[in-house]
Amino acid sequence: MTTVAASGLVTLLTDFGTSDTYVAEMKAAMLRIEPSIRFIDITHEIAPGDVNEARYCLDRTWSRFPAGTVHLVVVDPGVGTARRALAARRDGHGFVAPDNGVLAGVVQGTTVVALPVPDGASATFHGRDVFAPAAARLAIGEALEALGSPCAHVVEPHRPAPQRDGDTMVGHVVHVDRFGNLVTDIVPDGMPERVCVVVAGHETRGLRRTFGEVELGQLVAYVGSAGTIEVAVRDGSATRMLGVGRGTAVKVSLA
Amino acid sequence: MTTVAASGLVTLLTDFGTSDTYVAEMKAAMLRIEPSIRFIDITHEIAPGDVNEARYCLDRTWSRFPAGTVHLVVVDPGVGTARRALAARRDGHGFVAPDNGVLAGVVQGTTVVALPVPDGASATFHGRDVFAPAAARLAIGEALEALGSPCAHVVEPHRPAPQRDGDTMVGHVVHVDRFGNLVTDIVPDGMPERVCVVVAGHETRGLRRTFGEVELGQLVAYVGSAGTIEVAVRDGSATRMLGVGRGTAVKVSLA
Amino acid sequence: MTTVAASGLVTLLTDFGTSDTYVAEMKAAMLRIEPSIRFIDITHEIAPGDVNEARYCLDRTWSRFPAGTVHLVVVDPGVGTARRALAARRDGHGFVAPDNGVLAGVVQGTTVVALPVPDGASATFHGRDVFAPAAARLAIGEALEALGSPCAHVVEPHRPAPQRDGDTMVGHVVHVDRFGNLVTDIVPDGMPERVCVVVAGHETRGLRRTFGEVELGQLVAYVGSAGTIEVAVRDGSATRMLGVGRGTAVKVSLA
Repeated sequence: MTTVAASGLVTLLTDFGTSDTYVAEMKAAMLRIEPSIRFIDITHEIAPGDVNEARYCLDRTWSRFPAGTVHLVVVDPGVGTARRALAARRDGHGFVAPDNGVLAGVVQGTTVVALPVPDGASATFHGRDVFAPAAARLAIGEALEALGSPCAHVVEPHRPAPQRDGDTMVGHVVHVDRFGNLVTDIVPDGMPERVCVVVAGHETRGLRRTFGEVELGQLVAYVGSAGTIEVAVRDGSATRMLGVGRGTAVKVSLA
Repeated sequence: MTTVAASGLVTLLTDFGTSDTYVAEMKAAMLRIEPSIRFIDITHEIAPGDVNEARYCLDRTWSRFPAGTVHLVVVDPGVGTARRALAARRDGHGFVAPDNGVLAGVVQGTTVVALPVPDGASATFHGRDVFAPAAARLAIGEALEALGSPCAHVVEPHRPAPQRDGDTMVGHVVHVDRFGNLVTDIVPDGMPERVCVVVAGHETRGLRRTFGEVELGQLVAYVGSAGTIEVAVRDGSATRMLGVGRGTAVKVSLA
Repeated sequence: MTTVAASGLVTLLTDFGTSDTYVAEMKAAMLRIEPSIRFIDITHEIAPGDVNEARYCLDRTWSRFPAGTVHLVVVDPGVGTARRALAARRDGHGFVAPDNGVLAGVVQGTTVVALPVPDGASATFHGRDVFAPAAARLAIGEALEALGSPCAHVVEPHRPAPQRDGDTMVGHVVHVDRFGNLVTDIVPDGMPERVCVVVAGHETRGLRRTFGEVELGQLVAYVGSAGTIEVAVRDGSATRMLGVGRGTAVKVSLA
């Protein structure tokens, strides 16, 4: 059994909010295993049980951290049921999360293990008693195989991919950020700059470089910081102005 | 004067919120004393002045951290009045807080010292100018006795304990978490599994292991992650469904 | 090119909120440059684009941290436009922020450099791709001059200073904190204790030492923890009771 490089960093991504003590109890459980572990909170404001949103946040951040970082994701509406607890490694990063689809974008083709539930673990708080200890052990370089038994399949929920139909591509809003910007799942690879983007009957022409290229209060489409097309309102909120949110269809006409 | 083992970890528990700079100013005051101190935020979302809620959060978390950790609690509606500022040690942990009852569950039978107020301390922000420096000094291993003079009694506010009357135990909701789960103060030791739990006229039978054992939208009672009975609604909010909150009586019939 | 003392500490002050992954992506960018950097979040709850509020928070906190600390401020409504990206050093501290006035209180008379925008930087997220890397380089002790070209002038927006007219001083509410306390820009140097403070037609006499010196629910003026006059309601909210907020005029009669 070999150990691997470890940065001693653990990121946390949960739906626990910041009013309760749950996040601190997970950190305490990890510090009991290794007091030098350092934490980066991705967010704890995932809506309760919103696995898709957690997956979105994980997919766009994990690879930006140094190799050796461990990513602990606890959005776990099925806690205490038969759903498995998973740990994985990919590209030098570690991952620990429930088997509910949140890791689906990360672990394709990698070794995944199922974590045992220790005696005495709270049946309603596996975050503290199952996932956090596993994350700490990955963070100090323990081998994945020491944590559990390999498992072949992980849950991969249906998620519609953007569809191309001739000169039109149809995707969806997958995230609305604090500024009210609409983040889509449409990657602009190979698109002409003179596209036409339509959301909820509102149209904006061209992919701009930044908000400043349109007038105040105008709709603007651009390639966002996650590499996909976003729709915003300069110095305003697209989600409020258009009355739309996650799941709304976005149509990009390429001609 | 001896020094003690120190983990260099300080937890923070306040009612300061995260919009103001108050928490950062406390951390800065500690880093000025020892730049290597690391911080864990328990929560800063205690309702302003809610000493009971702060005590609940402290009582359920502190002992989960490694020995040597210092716990800094600043929920201090009496700041600048004659209330004392306290520091204590117990089981290798350090504690710093105002003498308003927040430490009552922790410091019974331990040595407690009263902290002097340094010249130039802001009369409205002892968190930064009195408590934080004391926490930093404990965190680097200074002896408790170096921080202040021993004091014999600490404030212990009245808090009703659960009452047993024949086959019935009556306790209270002591915390409502982000998911709307009702956490009670009733420890299930020695209870049969076939209890009947009543909250606000709603009844649920049996202590389940986890949410998944009842149907969606059903009320469920179980032993929560703090070791007391909790009442929840599967994939819903008990506080909203029952219209109750902290302080509500909970009756457990043991027969 | 010389290097300077570095504490390895970076503070963050943004309008990104804590629901999105933006703050974590900035931290990841810094950890990629130096994995040992430690972070202190000042606040991420600045209202979107509110440069004045960010400046207030920066001005009252930065000098409380140890020398060598780097302060990263990203409140950047002009991201992607021609506004410059700045880095500076003062009194051993480092600063990185957009050139929109947020650094105006800090960098007078110091060397300031303009940061180049690297190839491939997202035009809508300079926080991650321009500012964070510069902050990390300052945090590990790189010379300011290695980061960009010196620039002579920085944006300094108009901010009215308190005005004295005979026995009266008129200032403004510059911040409202979580407790509803009104923080003004009026420094009480040389004022008699028996001043009369008027806000929105409500009057309170004398500068008290702390809240406890007035009755519950009474208005009270005192010198706050930032060294300026504040107006509060004991165990209540001045902003709610008076119906006023940031920008409201506050009159102090000295006679």
